[in-house]
Formats: sequence, structure tokens, C-alpha cells
Amino acid sequence: MLEKQRKNLNFAVIGGGHGGQGIAAYLAYLGHKVNLYNRTITKVEKILEQGFIEMEGCISGKGYMNLVTDSIEHAISGADVIMVAVPASAHKYIANLIAPYVAAGQYIVLNPGRTGGALEFKNIIRNINPGKNVCIVEAQTLLFACRVVEEGKVAILSKKNEVKVAALPAIRTMEFISVINHTIPEFVKTNSVLDTSFNNIGAILHPIPTILNCGRIENTKGDFLYYIDGITPTVAKIIEEVDYERMQIADALGAEVVSLREWLGSTYGAYGNTLCEALSNVKGYWGIKAPASLDTRYIFEDVPQSLVPIADMGQYLEIETPTINSMIHLASVIHNKDYYGIGRTVADMGLDGLSIDEIKSYVVSGEIYTSGGVVA
Amino acid sequence: MLEKQRKNLNFAVIGGGHGGQGIAAYLAYLGHKVNLYNRTITKVEKILEQGFIEMEGCISGKGYMNLVTDSIEHAISGADVIMVAVPASAHKYIANLIAPYVAAGQYIVLNPGRTGGALEFKNIIRNINPGKNVCIVEAQTLLFACRVVEEGKVAILSKKNEVKVAALPAIRTMEFISVINHTIPEFVKTNSVLDTSFNNIGAILHPIPTILNCGRIENTKGDFLYYIDGITPTVAKIIEEVDYERMQIADALGAEVVSLREWLGSTYGAYGNTLCEALSNVKGYWGIKAPASLDTRYIFEDVPQSLVPIADMGQYLEIETPTINSMIHLASVIHNKDYYGIGRTVADMGLDGLSIDEIKSYVVSGEIYTSGGVVA
Repeated sequence: MLEKQRKNLNFAVIGGGHGGQGIAAYLAYLGHKVNLYNRTITKVEKILEQGFIEMEGCISGKGYMNLVTDSIEHAISGADVIMVAVPASAHKYIANLIAPYVAAGQYIVLNPGRTGGALEFKNIIRNINPGKNVCIVEAQTLLFACRVVEEGKVAILSKKNEVKVAALPAIRTMEFISVINHTIPEFVKTNSVLDTSFNNIGAILHPIPTILNCGRIENTKGDFLYYIDGITPTVAKIIEEVDYERMQIADALGAEVVSLREWLGSTYGAYGNTLCEALSNVKGYWGIKAPASLDTRYIFEDVPQSLVPIADMGQYLEIETPTINSMIHLASVIHNKDYYGIGRTVADMGLDGLSIDEIKSYVVSGEIYTSGGVVA
Repeated sequence: MLEKQRKNLNFAVIGGGHGGQGIAAYLAYLGHKVNLYNRTITKVEKILEQGFIEMEGCISGKGYMNLVTDSIEHAISGADVIMVAVPASAHKYIANLIAPYVAAGQYIVLNPGRTGGALEFKNIIRNINPGKNVCIVEAQTLLFACRVVEEGKVAILSKKNEVKVAALPAIRTMEFISVINHTIPEFVKTNSVLDTSFNNIGAILHPIPTILNCGRIENTKGDFLYYIDGITPTVAKIIEEVDYERMQIADALGAEVVSLREWLGSTYGAYGNTLCEALSNVKGYWGIKAPASLDTRYIFEDVPQSLVPIADMGQYLEIETPTINSMIHLASVIHNKDYYGIGRTVADMGLDGLSIDEIKSYVVSGEIYTSGGVVA
């Protein structure tokens, strides 16, 4: 029976980038049937031809694909689990694409959701395909740190020991974990998507030091240690202010969140009297340079899909987020884009008009109870 | 007659720091009677003992002081011109100190006023000593670039060819220039203190690159070329956004202002297709390093006395200044100070409740005409 469960899962992996190739290769390598979808088929042509993705690094082997396609319909047809491994800025596009074809009983897993990914995804599917009772799962972070070396070959740099996940609705989290457990035992339950969304540490560690080092990144092409040289006591002070604003909002929503300092401790065993000291105790950070330019997902993904939903939730709950707002504004100037305008909002998450209690109840039950009864 | 005018001017120089020692030495060296005031007498003890301040650099010689004192009353008694050469953050303190003793007919010159210095100064004196019809003159910048080498010895690094000045009221600017002209021919008339206040280029060039390079300053102790390495295309983009916000407010007030790019051209003959190119064409900028730490007047003077009055005037006129606001907020986080709260506001400038036309008329006439008649 165990053996059967292991063999019988069908996966669709959405996205042929770093994360997508990594997870697709790994799942196929474990013996599962994997369909790989990429919007532009020419970008995964080599995988289509050779039929497999090779892994190197801390896991090595080949994962043979069942199907490589640019048809979302074919990709997800018959899949038990749909692994969405695209930049969070593409979640909206993918949700719209999937909505007409998704089947009841399929799990859609966002790897990761950044902030509000599952809520936005469910809201889009609910609007397009109201009858379908899908379960969206939000992973707090990607299972792997991985990089595509060349098309069809991916380096698995590290695999996390634990990745927190929550289903929307949260009452289905354990059901999902029981399905996935033999394949990805690293997925562990957390209370709700509010936890995964508001524990999004990338929201803090990616955009803030990048923006505050924008001149240095450009002047040196990123030739300095991002976490060590880039985060000085003053940069750390601003980071902790952003972190504090995030935590205040999370607290108001009853999410179980940890501070960046606590996260460094629990994730890397890195402690210190100051944030700088704790960062310097993360061994892996000593090798990581800053992005080579400001055209980086540290800004174009993490600002609209992490900082904006946090700030907009703050505004919705009347909690001030002046430091986060400054960062969103500077990012907007840097990229000539209105990131607040294009980013993920409370309305995108389908929470507009709900009280805190209604939000808390919605993430658990997946249904919106108001004084007028169930409305969605 | 000319000779007489030259010899007979009595000066009080307020402030024994870089600017104060420089201007006091220079005026005395030219043969004028100079009283030097410093709040803490021990800080100018050596000058008191030796009786003079020595200049080196592009001007060399000695300037003998008539009086070195910590009594503002003694310092300004009998002075034709009171040269205020203190950080703009001390203007409020000095205005309160001077107000009871200032005599009609004395000129008070702010070297420089940053933004709104003359307006704030006059507002304080008007409140404390309403009958006194003083003339406050605002200089757009300091006459010298100078540094105290040791107490009583100041290096004059350069003298500007031209410094724009305006009196408050502007109808007295030419009268002041005719008095000072033989001593400081570099002072040239501009329309009003709105011009000197809103052409405050330090507001742009000092705090913005400092804040946007806060990590690099701390990590390298300022060991990079401030204007060359510190202002990359992206930092320049943010600077130009701040400059645009400043210009919009200046335009609304009818001030004659130039953009930073135009200013680099007219001041240094430095042009370029981009701001970065123009900056790289200022020869003097190639030697200037960043501040060695974030404890710098580029933040603690220029944010509260330059950016805050610009932003507050923006808010007053309902002109948005999101980029300036971001900078003020970040500076506040960096220094753990509420810079907006302690900075110079429209109310401090005595302009609260006035329409744009009333402000324009006030800076020219020195009197506030409202529908109810002259109120001040």
C-alpha cells in the first residue's frame, strides 16, 4: 500500500525555470509521473528532445518526464498534485490559465506563494470556476536551492530539512500532507496560509538590502558579500523596522510568525547580540554576493508579491507601514514601475470587506461567513 | 567715501565652527571690526588668547578679532551686519537668543539659510520682539568652502565667484547689497528668499546619496568617491525624482529655481547627457570621499532643515513628495529621530494659513496682507 501510494502520484510541474526544473527532475527521479509545463516551449526544447532533466549537486540522477508541453490543459490533466514553481508575479497568469481545467480533488501547491499567493490563486479560480472546490497549498519557501546549469541540467545546491505548508482551507492541510508525505516528507503543517504568507522572510532579506545598496550594486556589479558587507548596523536597523511592521500585521491577523532574528536561529542555528552578528554566523552567507544588477527578482518579484501585500494588508487593518512604503516607493522609482499599483493587494487576495475574524475563519474553512451567511 | 564705507562696517559673526571662523577671519583680514560669538567659550579659547584667526589655503593672512565672547548681547551690540554661520539646526536657538537684543537697522545674514531659514528667523523675532523691523538676509550657500585645521587656524579651500542673496523683505535686498558690496562683492541679488530657499541644492546632493549609500559608508568608512562611485544611474534616478519634487513646489511658489543638472552647468560648467555624466565632469568631485560615518551633517542638518521644509511646503500646497518623504523617513530610522517632527515646517516659517499669493507678497514686503488688512 505504501509502495502503491509512492508510485501512483501524478504530478504537473508548472514552470521550466530553476525551481520548476529542480522539482520536476526530483519528483520524476523518485519514480513519479511528471508533466512539465512551460509557457514557451522553445525554452524547454532540449528537455522535450532528451526526455529527462539531469540533476547534479547534492542529489544526482535523471528524472524522466512523462510529458513536456505548453498546454496547461494537457499538463494538469490527471495530475494529483499541480506544483506551481513560477515567480510569484506569474501566479495571477497561471491561476487564470488553470482555472477552466482544474479538477475537483486536485491539489495546487505554490512553491512558494510569497505573501498572499494561495489567497490570490483561490480568489481567481473561485471567480472563474466557482463550483470547483480546489485545495490550494502554500509552501513557505522552495524545497531546494537550485540553479539551472544549462537547459535540462539543474544543480541542486541544497535541500531544506523542513518546509512549512498550509492548505487553503487549512482544514485540508493534513489531508494534503498525508498524500504528499511519502514523496516530500519535508513538508510540515503550519496553521494556515497566513503563517506561510507572513513568515515570508524573503520579503525582508531580498528587497531591503538590495534597495539600500542600489548604488553599490551598480558601481561594483554586485561584487561584495550581500549579507555580510551589505547589511551593516544601519541597514540592519532599517531591516528590523520593516520586520517589525510585518510582525505587527501578522500579529493582528493571529498568524504565528517569527522575527528575522528568530528565523536565523531556527533555520541556520545562527545567533548573535545583533542582527549583523547573527547574519555573520550563517556560514552560507559568506559566499553569497549581491545581485550583479538591479534587474533582479529580489526587487521585481519580492516587492510586488511580498512587500505590497504586507503593506496593503497594513493599510486595510490601519497599521502603519512607513518603512515598507518607503521601500516600495524607491523600488518603483528604481524600475520606473508603480509596484504598489501592480502588486498583490487585499482585493486580489479576495479579502476586501472582511473583518479580521472573517479572514481568520476563511483561511481555515475556505468559506466566507458573513452576517448574511456563506457568500463564497 | 568708498574708503570710509569699507572701513566702517562692524560685524558680529555668530558661530565659531568651520564657516564662522572662516568668515570672521576673512572680514577682519579685510579690515573690518569683527565680534565673534560662540555658545561655548572654551571652544574658541585659543582665538580669545591669541586674538586672531589665521587663514591658509587660497587666502592666507590673519584676521584680528575685536571681541570673542559667549554673550550674544555683547557680540551684536553696535554691529551693522550679524553674520549667522551656524548649522541650520541651530537657527531656531540663535534667533531666540538674538531677538531681545537686535536693533532696528541691523542686517542678519544667514550663511546659508538652507530652506526657510530666513522665514523661520524672522518669524521668531517677530513673535518675541514685534516692534523691531529687522532685515533677514538669506545666502544660498556659504561664501567659502573652508575647514578648521586647528582652533584659530582655518583653511580656505575655495571661494565662490557668486553667492545669491535675498533679503526678507525682498524690497530691501538692494539696500543690503549696497552696504555689503565693497566687502563681499560676491553677494548678488536674487528675487526673494523663496529663490535662495528652494535653490538649496545641498538638500538634494547631501542627504540622498548618503542615505542610499548608508551600508557602503558604514562598511567602507566612506572610502569611495561620493559623487562618482556613490551616484550611479539608479541613485541618480532617485536624486532626479527628489529634484523634480523640489522644483514642482518651487514652481507653485513662483520661485526661480534651476534643476540640479542646470546648477551643475552654471556653477561648475559641468554638462553631460545624464546626471552621472555631468557629475563626472565636475573636476572637484573626483577628490571628495563619502562621509566617514552616518553621523554627518549631510543627514542631521540637511534632512530637518532642507528636506523637511520642502516636504512640508509640498503638503501645505497639496503637492505630493513621496520620494522626499521616503528619504526623511529612512533618515529618521537611521538616526532614531523623528526628523519630520523636529524639522522646519511651514508653521515654523510663519506661513501657516497664507495662500500662495499671500506668501509671495509677504516675502517681498515683509508684511502679511490678508482680507483683514496687515496682520504682521
